[in-house]
Amino acid sequence: MRIGELSKRSGVAVPTIKFYLREGMLPPGERTSPNQAQYDDSHVRRLRLVRAMVDLGGLSVAAVRDILATVDSPTDDLDKLMGTVSKGLTQAPEEVDETALDEVFDLIEDLGWLCNREHPAARSLALVYTAAREIDHPQLIAAMRRYAEASELIAKADLDYVENFSGIDRVLESVVVGTVLGDSALAALRKLAQTAESHRRYGSDDPVE
Amino acid sequence: MRIGELSKRSGVAVPTIKFYLREGMLPPGERTSPNQAQYDDSHVRRLRLVRAMVDLGGLSVAAVRDILATVDSPTDDLDKLMGTVSKGLTQAPEEVDETALDEVFDLIEDLGWLCNREHPAARSLALVYTAAREIDHPQLIAAMRRYAEASELIAKADLDYVENFSGIDRVLESVVVGTVLGDSALAALRKLAQTAESHRRYGSDDPVE
Repeated sequence: MRIGELSKRSGVAVPTIKFYLREGMLPPGERTSPNQAQYDDSHVRRLRLVRAMVDLGGLSVAAVRDILATVDSPTDDLDKLMGTVSKGLTQAPEEVDETALDEVFDLIEDLGWLCNREHPAARSLALVYTAAREIDHPQLIAAMRRYAEASELIAKADLDYVENFSGIDRVLESVVVGTVLGDSALAALRKLAQTAESHRRYGSDDPVE
Repeated sequence: MRIGELSKRSGVAVPTIKFYLREGMLPPGERTSPNQAQYDDSHVRRLRLVRAMVDLGGLSVAAVRDILATVDSPTDDLDKLMGTVSKGLTQAPEEVDETALDEVFDLIEDLGWLCNREHPAARSLALVYTAAREIDHPQLIAAMRRYAEASELIAKADLDYVENFSGIDRVLESVVVGTVLGDSALAALRKLAQTAESHRRYGSDDPVE
C-alpha cells in the first residue's frame, strides 16, 4: 500500500509516519519509484506498536528505538523482552538511597522474587521508601508486603494477558498496552475498591457519595 | 512560633507559606503585632498536609481548598472524607462513553462494590475500556476482574494503613500520601512482580537481566 493508505489503516497522520521513518522507528517501505514506496501489514502493526509506546507509554524516541532494537534482534527470549520493555517504561531515578534500596531487596528476597539491583522499578520503589520517611509516613513501608502480594496476582493476570498474543510485535504491543493502560486501570480500581471498602467499614446505609 | 520557625519546622519556604496563607490553604496565625503573627503545631501539621496534596498529589489550589473545606467542616464521617480526598486525587475525564461506563458498573456490581455513577475513578476506568478497544486490545478488559480482586486486597491494606492515624489532619494526610506514594509503589511492585513471574515462566537459570 502507499503511505496514504498506511495512514488510513493505522490512523497515524502521514507527517507522523514520515517522522517515524526518519527516526528509524518504522522500517522503510519498498521503493517503487524515487518518490514512492510500498508498505505492508508489518508496517501497520509496527506503527500500532510505536503509537502504543509513544502515545500511551510516553516513551522517548530513544527508549522506543531501544525496544525496537530488541524486537528486531531475532529472539524468542520472552523473559529478556519483557524485561527490556518493562524497564523502558520505567523512569529509573538518578540517585537512590542505598539503604532504602537494601530494604526494597529485603522485601524482594523475602517474596522469592528474582530481580537484579539495577532494575529501575526497584530503584523507584526505593525512592518511595525515602519519600515516605521524609514526610514522616514510615507506616506506608509496612504496607508494602501486602501491596507486593496483590502485585503478584496482578502480574499473573498480566502474563496470562500477554499469552493471548502471538507474533513478537503483538506480544510487545500487549506488554506496553497492558503496562500503560493497566496502570491507569489499576489506579482507578484501587480508588473504587477503597470507596467500597471504606463504605463497608464506616459507611451508613445512605447511597455512597 | 514565628513564620521563620514555622518554615524551619515544616521545611516549607517562607514565601510559600505566605502564598498558602493568602490562598486560604493555611489558617492565619495569631496576630501579636501589625506585622507579626504566632503559629503553632496545628500550622505545622496543616502545612505538611498541604504539601502532601500539592507536591505529591499534584492537586490544584482549588482541589486542595475543597479538601480542606471538608477537613474543617467538623465531621467524623471518614467514609465521606475518604470519598472527597480520593475524588480530589482523581482527574475525572470530561466525556466518557456511556456504554463503557455501563460495562464498568457491570463489574462493580458483580464485585458487590458500592459506588455511584459519578465516581471519577469509574469514569477514568471507562476511558481505559474505550482506549483498549480503540487500539484493538479488548483482551485487556477481560483482565479487569482479576485486577479488581487484587485491588480489593490493596484497598484493605490502604484502610488498615489509614487506621494507624488519629486526628483528622493526619488521617487525611495518610489518605493523600497513601494514595499518591502508594500508586508509585504499586506501579513499581507490579513491574518487579512481572519480572519475577516472567522469569518463573520463561526464564533460564541465568541471573535476571
